[in-house]
Amino acid sequence: MTAQSSEASFDSPNDLFLRACRREPVPRPPVWMMRQAGRYLPEYQAVRSRAAFLDICKTPELACEVTLQPLDRFGFDAAILFSDILIPLQPMGLGLEFVESVGPQIPNPVRDRAGVRRLAAPDPESSMGFVMDAIREIRRALAGRVPLIGFGGAPFTMATYAVEGGGSKTYPHTKGLLFGDPEAAHALLTTLADTTAAYLEAQIRAGAQAIQMFDSWAGILAPRDFREFALAYARRVIESIKSSSAYRDNPAPLIYFVNGCAPYLEDIATAGADVVGVDWRIDLDEARRRLGDGVAVQGNLDPTCLFLEPEPLRERVAEVLDKAGSAPGHIFNLGHGVLPMTNPERVDVMVRAVREQSARS
Amino acid sequence: MTAQSSEASFDSPNDLFLRACRREPVPRPPVWMMRQAGRYLPEYQAVRSRAAFLDICKTPELACEVTLQPLDRFGFDAAILFSDILIPLQPMGLGLEFVESVGPQIPNPVRDRAGVRRLAAPDPESSMGFVMDAIREIRRALAGRVPLIGFGGAPFTMATYAVEGGGSKTYPHTKGLLFGDPEAAHALLTTLADTTAAYLEAQIRAGAQAIQMFDSWAGILAPRDFREFALAYARRVIESIKSSSAYRDNPAPLIYFVNGCAPYLEDIATAGADVVGVDWRIDLDEARRRLGDGVAVQGNLDPTCLFLEPEPLRERVAEVLDKAGSAPGHIFNLGHGVLPMTNPERVDVMVRAVREQSARS
Repeated sequence: MTAQSSEASFDSPNDLFLRACRREPVPRPPVWMMRQAGRYLPEYQAVRSRAAFLDICKTPELACEVTLQPLDRFGFDAAILFSDILIPLQPMGLGLEFVESVGPQIPNPVRDRAGVRRLAAPDPESSMGFVMDAIREIRRALAGRVPLIGFGGAPFTMATYAVEGGGSKTYPHTKGLLFGDPEAAHALLTTLADTTAAYLEAQIRAGAQAIQMFDSWAGILAPRDFREFALAYARRVIESIKSSSAYRDNPAPLIYFVNGCAPYLEDIATAGADVVGVDWRIDLDEARRRLGDGVAVQGNLDPTCLFLEPEPLRERVAEVLDKAGSAPGHIFNLGHGVLPMTNPERVDVMVRAVREQSARS
Repeated sequence: MTAQSSEASFDSPNDLFLRACRREPVPRPPVWMMRQAGRYLPEYQAVRSRAAFLDICKTPELACEVTLQPLDRFGFDAAILFSDILIPLQPMGLGLEFVESVGPQIPNPVRDRAGVRRLAAPDPESSMGFVMDAIREIRRALAGRVPLIGFGGAPFTMATYAVEGGGSKTYPHTKGLLFGDPEAAHALLTTLADTTAAYLEAQIRAGAQAIQMFDSWAGILAPRDFREFALAYARRVIESIKSSSAYRDNPAPLIYFVNGCAPYLEDIATAGADVVGVDWRIDLDEARRRLGDGVAVQGNLDPTCLFLEPEPLRERVAEVLDKAGSAPGHIFNLGHGVLPMTNPERVDVMVRAVREQSARS
């Protein structure tokens, strides 16, 4: 069985993750996993059987409990706050519901200029204080064991949900707004950028030691539209955070993750992030070549590789490490969130493989 | 209103499309549109109000009628058979239904070795003769006005439907098969490649003057998996077609379209296709540079650009033409299928802009 890894108990704080984010030399690459606290874990399912998804997000003790579950089981090198990128849409007045086997639903989507005008960036402490409470609670519970990553959605990705009212395959309403009324689209993205910046600054103030910004759906854009509607607003958030007092007191590394990043890597390198999250559709050697030396990279095992038998899975892990190369600044991760049907024992195989392969090289 | 374009009536056959496929010099790039016969057209909706989608596919007179509709309205430089890539799944025993506002459903998906073993490549003439009848009927109706493109799904994309039983966001069952039982996956892909090759050869024999193979979901694969599970089988189909007697009698240009092609362009260049279809996420100058001189390119306006007002839409068309450059071998198209909510008048703006911009340069 997947007993607690012996490497998971540390006498001194494990700062491998933060050092890799800063491109400092590390004895081995740190490893964590997007959605590492989640449905593939039976201990998470046990909590979910007692509490709805949003209730876990809004109850600091529960958010803390599930955040720690994968650390106890696998000994990851970082914790990530249990939450959802769409949390800020609720205090913005758009509403937010999670419907079983459908996903997030936004009851009041915004599709025109008048709707955009009604939105304002909410104050994070008064409207989403439960997130900051969860961060403080998790930091106490971690007691320095590993760093805690906070996160939020990048403005463009938030906009797709705000406009579509949920997920989509072709995003017709979002693109209808971008192309039919670009001025309204820019106003919406500005409000979302200000919301996200204030929210992430509050997370840093509460104790998040790194921040990941998820641009999960920016990969639907042509290169010029990516620059205009996604990158410009991700950069606005990053610049705002980096000039904030919260950041001056606690310079948390910033990770920018674009799912489907391959077409835009040269542009993404200019976002101002310390780390670029790379999905699995491009090899890390090419990604690093195109990103240049100014950023660390995080990734990028295909999450479905966890369906492989242990031996071919270990080979895939070795391939990712090999393509990442020996230059400092690689954080091992999946290329997207772990899938619910994943067998936790394979996650254990992956984590051990990262450690063993790295020790061999 | 969008009256029939004067350029649409030709005294001599319009072979711009075929010449561009062969990278011969042409006075202006040909233009057609993926899904040009479809739901955005009121005259198509009128036919649909009398007949279900699959019934149109299976009734040569109706398939012919809707295939010609966009030619009459816009004067495209090519016709494309009205059909669906999933048609062969029905005679393979997997079943096929189209559910309103849900999309295609495969009642008997194949998820294991035993299921794969039960499948065999069907004889196209006896099991899908209605497609070949439609091609003959459309060729008669076109009377040489423009060339007719036949099409089919590439093996990997067919496999995603055969395994998932419909569309998906993360394709867990498909990847479960690829990674959990690669031998069964390869057997399935081999059967699908043989099915597709025989089907497309029958289309060429019936009179299709070019063939497009759609790998709509190959963009979910890591580069090595793209080569192993998508490209290898697309190449198998292309090699089979090119060595067939049908092709020797009628060497129809072959177009390979991968949605989300940016990460794989160097590999795609080796598929053996005459033309590579490029989606909108990468600029055509970069795509051509990475593909090299051995293939023509087709694309790549973002379909949602048709939501733009006429003037910015014309600017986008000019950008695509500009990025395509002046070397022979560019077919103007969208980067994916036209969306149902598209205003047909904007399509007219696009088609005219291709002609006018090209005339100016």
